[in-house]
Amino acid sequence: MRITILGGGGFLGRKLAVRLAADGTLGGRPITELTLFDLAAPTAPAAPFPIRCLGGDVADPATVRQAIPPGTEVVVHLAAVVSAQAEADYDLGMRVNLQGTLAVLEACRALAASGAPPPRVIFTSSVASFGGGQDANLPDDARQLPGNSYGAEKAVAELLLQDASRKGFLDAVSIRLPTVIIRPGRPNKAASSFVSGILREPLLGLETELPVPEDFSVWVCSPRQAVAWFLHAMAMDTAPLGLDRGINPPGLSVTVQAMLDGLARAAGPAARALVRASPDPAVAAIVGGWPASFTAERGRRLGFTEQPGIDAIIAAFLADDLPATKAERGM
Amino acid sequence: MRITILGGGGFLGRKLAVRLAADGTLGGRPITELTLFDLAAPTAPAAPFPIRCLGGDVADPATVRQAIPPGTEVVVHLAAVVSAQAEADYDLGMRVNLQGTLAVLEACRALAASGAPPPRVIFTSSVASFGGGQDANLPDDARQLPGNSYGAEKAVAELLLQDASRKGFLDAVSIRLPTVIIRPGRPNKAASSFVSGILREPLLGLETELPVPEDFSVWVCSPRQAVAWFLHAMAMDTAPLGLDRGINPPGLSVTVQAMLDGLARAAGPAARALVRASPDPAVAAIVGGWPASFTAERGRRLGFTEQPGIDAIIAAFLADDLPATKAERGM
Repeated sequence: MRITILGGGGFLGRKLAVRLAADGTLGGRPITELTLFDLAAPTAPAAPFPIRCLGGDVADPATVRQAIPPGTEVVVHLAAVVSAQAEADYDLGMRVNLQGTLAVLEACRALAASGAPPPRVIFTSSVASFGGGQDANLPDDARQLPGNSYGAEKAVAELLLQDASRKGFLDAVSIRLPTVIIRPGRPNKAASSFVSGILREPLLGLETELPVPEDFSVWVCSPRQAVAWFLHAMAMDTAPLGLDRGINPPGLSVTVQAMLDGLARAAGPAARALVRASPDPAVAAIVGGWPASFTAERGRRLGFTEQPGIDAIIAAFLADDLPATKAERGM
Repeated sequence: MRITILGGGGFLGRKLAVRLAADGTLGGRPITELTLFDLAAPTAPAAPFPIRCLGGDVADPATVRQAIPPGTEVVVHLAAVVSAQAEADYDLGMRVNLQGTLAVLEACRALAASGAPPPRVIFTSSVASFGGGQDANLPDDARQLPGNSYGAEKAVAELLLQDASRKGFLDAVSIRLPTVIIRPGRPNKAASSFVSGILREPLLGLETELPVPEDFSVWVCSPRQAVAWFLHAMAMDTAPLGLDRGINPPGLSVTVQAMLDGLARAAGPAARALVRASPDPAVAAIVGGWPASFTAERGRRLGFTEQPGIDAIIAAFLADDLPATKAERGM
């Protein structure tokens, strides 16, 4: 089985590649080749199968056709311009998030047109494609009314992949990822940066700021859980999805207070004391628009496993990402 | 005030142009120029203001910029590949319905970037962007889960215009038109052709076939009502719309039986007897997927007027379109 990861050099793409390399199989069948594609050619992990590493522009159809060679059965499309960047640079966001997805659609369609089965496409959509806010517990049929260009582009891509699935060009599963925590590395400019920061920074022994009240709720998942959802979506039977290719996976709705209590359990009260309240109305206004919870009933029914609680999320970071984060930051 | 109608040579575009020419004003301000754009340059109606008639490809950005000259305050974007054609020719549908809308977006954005107010854009979306079926009475926040490429492209265009409105590139109102009846001219290959046909053909003295049961319900509006909604959307205050630029206008949910009763009232029982039951499961399967009703509360609240009953729809056809239809068909 040939697999392609677009965005294979990113945070989640790398973790998925390492996992596929460790497993050697998907859905009980051996992986025969993996293509990792990103803006710059990613580095291949050690694997029992050949790995092609390509760099290029996901919005260029010819480049994307090379990244999805004949025989490709599964494409994991993680390549995206993220929320803050798509908002600051509209043209870049539209180019990568919309025209890039159209290039993926056309590359898959060409394979199906040549007689191969429609490739499975795992698309990472986002909680940012919804409105709703703190009081929301969104049902599975909630309308996507995005308040940012990133979310709009994700909702558009979902519709296009859904229609392409109906037409038999490809076979899409779009996973609306929660805010993924704990991101390794450094704080960034994203409005949601603090959601990882209030755990990661104290676990590194560093002070950090909390821009929202402690009773603020967020819909989150761990990188481990996101990879588990990808693997399930890559091998699942899609017939029960019917027309509706969007999945709200069973993430975790957690308050800041519960996150900080988990931090104290994992690293002691001194770690928790490193988080200083520093209200930021601008940040609160942005993240306050995202839904704090989803019922996620359909995702559970379709076999997407439940995100364990905050202690498991912190433990996963300590096991999987703390050493590399320390090394990256020269600590 | 400068106005552009894209798709100005079509059925609804021509009616809107004639109405603007008769009014001479919009929202109390004089119209100074009207541009009519279509695949082939439309014919201008007599008007108290200059009318530019242009032909070209709506998916070509340079062409669309010419059709939306500096000073344009209102763009009515009716240019589209319709449902059956978009389903049969995926590339054509994507080109016109998606890339065409992107060209319109960019042309408007260029005007706004030059310091002009963001142009008002009236976009005709469709009931075909929803699922739901015969039992549906869809609320205003219903999710769009299209079962056809045309509906998917319309839902995508709505999302893009909504986000462009939020960004201040333009100022969109997307009207999800019901099935517009009674279409003048001839029967066509559209699955919904019979909804007009069972009234138009008998009014011309011709036999016609009914592919669905008489208790089948359809969400409809007249061409007159569609034009009234366009005029309202062209001049309304859009501030109350907020982020949500999609309007389900207050159409009419009507059964085939009520339509045929109206036909008998207008043209006698002999006219009604020209409609022969001829069940067509393929047609019933397609039109049976469209929602038969909408609550349309928000549209009413925002000043979109109510579609009067079936007798008014038939009377409008007799007054506005019967003579031209007879002439076109050599009767």
